[in-house]
Amino acid sequence: MYRIGIVGYGNLGRACEKIAAAGKDFELVGIFTRRDPASLSSPFGTPFYRQADLPSFEGKIDVLALCTGSANDLVDLGKTAAVHFNTVDSFDTHAKMKGYVSDMEKIAVENGHLSFIGIGWDPGLFSLMRALFGGVLADGNTQTFWGKGVSQGHSEAVRKIKGVLKGVQYTVPKQAALDAARRGEGASLTTRDKHLRECFVVAAEDADKAEIEREIVTMPNYFDEYDTVVHFITAEEFDRDHTAMPHGGFVLRSGSVNGMHERVEFSLALDSNPDFTASVLMAYARVNCKMAAAGMRGAKTILDIPVIALTDEDRLDFIAHNL
Amino acid sequence: MYRIGIVGYGNLGRACEKIAAAGKDFELVGIFTRRDPASLSSPFGTPFYRQADLPSFEGKIDVLALCTGSANDLVDLGKTAAVHFNTVDSFDTHAKMKGYVSDMEKIAVENGHLSFIGIGWDPGLFSLMRALFGGVLADGNTQTFWGKGVSQGHSEAVRKIKGVLKGVQYTVPKQAALDAARRGEGASLTTRDKHLRECFVVAAEDADKAEIEREIVTMPNYFDEYDTVVHFITAEEFDRDHTAMPHGGFVLRSGSVNGMHERVEFSLALDSNPDFTASVLMAYARVNCKMAAAGMRGAKTILDIPVIALTDEDRLDFIAHNL
Repeated sequence: MYRIGIVGYGNLGRACEKIAAAGKDFELVGIFTRRDPASLSSPFGTPFYRQADLPSFEGKIDVLALCTGSANDLVDLGKTAAVHFNTVDSFDTHAKMKGYVSDMEKIAVENGHLSFIGIGWDPGLFSLMRALFGGVLADGNTQTFWGKGVSQGHSEAVRKIKGVLKGVQYTVPKQAALDAARRGEGASLTTRDKHLRECFVVAAEDADKAEIEREIVTMPNYFDEYDTVVHFITAEEFDRDHTAMPHGGFVLRSGSVNGMHERVEFSLALDSNPDFTASVLMAYARVNCKMAAAGMRGAKTILDIPVIALTDEDRLDFIAHNL
Repeated sequence: MYRIGIVGYGNLGRACEKIAAAGKDFELVGIFTRRDPASLSSPFGTPFYRQADLPSFEGKIDVLALCTGSANDLVDLGKTAAVHFNTVDSFDTHAKMKGYVSDMEKIAVENGHLSFIGIGWDPGLFSLMRALFGGVLADGNTQTFWGKGVSQGHSEAVRKIKGVLKGVQYTVPKQAALDAARRGEGASLTTRDKHLRECFVVAAEDADKAEIEREIVTMPNYFDEYDTVVHFITAEEFDRDHTAMPHGGFVLRSGSVNGMHERVEFSLALDSNPDFTASVLMAYARVNCKMAAAGMRGAKTILDIPVIALTDEDRLDFIAHNL
């Protein structure tokens, strides 16, 4: 049994809890939160603790899953947690990845711990594919497409607009761009070519819908570089059709070997983004426990970990079953 | 510069030679063959040597790429080669994989060498996907589909039939089966459900076409368990449309996390099967040289090798660029 702690009780933390509760190899020590533990309750009876009390659990937790929402919080949390625990996280700010891995490496090594960073699907499985595809098809172009799926950041941006009661934004890969990338013409694609942004909005009765639409489609960084479609719907339609968190995407590389065209492609179709992310995170949490016990230290990414580490099966049997 | 030797001068050996010649980091020591070296010539001026003379090249080759055609030959070749050299191969007899890896492990360790086994796309990239998908989506079903592409074994079987002058067999995944697997209904698919076998045959003028067709579609092991379509075409049509070696395929896993349906999928579309296989083999030949120099010994598969090993870039930069 691997003793696991979960920090954060949002969508990802709840999904990890559910996986731990359903499985046979995790003992869930507790959920650590910045909220008042007394204000929370779990369908599995998991105990809640204050995040500030984490250090007192040193030695009682084999791996800590960092499931807080904000990227900034996660960096600080990670650096504190790696002093006391082995950690896994799905930190996803690509621009800050290098600094975070570098800082975590130092802290984890100094304190004798193992931290897995950027474990999910992007970063995570998509990262693995980008690295693998570039390695085996050197002369080519890699493109990543996201969706169709809900972007939390863009949905929040829509919801902040005056007069918006409910809102969700789907990132939708454009078929023509996917086809072009598959033909090897990915390098010439622009941001606008690749993705459509589709918003479903419930407006207040007295709201100016034309103004809401204008504010969305012209919003800098979020929407102005994209083709954006805004649909106004009723609250009933929203609650019926737009409360799930589906996502998906594609990583594809189109290239040439000895003058011949070759293509490799990975794709995801997820009915629930947080549940799948949690499934990847928990699989690697198990690997973390095994590799830490075997003496591995420092900060590792999905690129550093051989896939065979995911199994408990006898090595030769696993090779026979998968190779 | 990595000093590489190639054993075998069929499609795969020639493709590896071309990659080595085009690249900047391989020095191609020579091609080793069981044919008379004097009977062969290379467009790149590569020297040819007798396969039997391989032991005299010990210490002069960093890695030996085993590119012989027959699976049986490859096992014997591998076991002999691993005494003297680090090796990479794309051995593909799944049923014999466990024994081969086990034997090679012993020989490579005893002789201080590193052997990479089953490096290509199946086994190879497909193996990596099967293992990864099973690890991150534990509750699910994995299906592998091959094609559309040329099966050498089935094509040879067709060509052995009396009255067949030329013949090629394409393995074609059935769309309905792919769709079913994507929906999560892969476990119930039969062999006949998954693939169609499509043959293009040039028959001798006096041949009994009905009899040729009957012999093909009823051939045990090769065709009898499949739906098979036979097209009779002219020699001109054959030479124009059926001399390339395209291939492709899909590995997909459909499963459930916390009751939600999730799917991961990898696919290939190759204009040239031997050139892409060679590209994978040569990428891992480079890794073999680096890891052998770093002290790794024994028999390893693509499952054992972290993806980060494929790059020469600074580790943190590579993480920043791919994660």
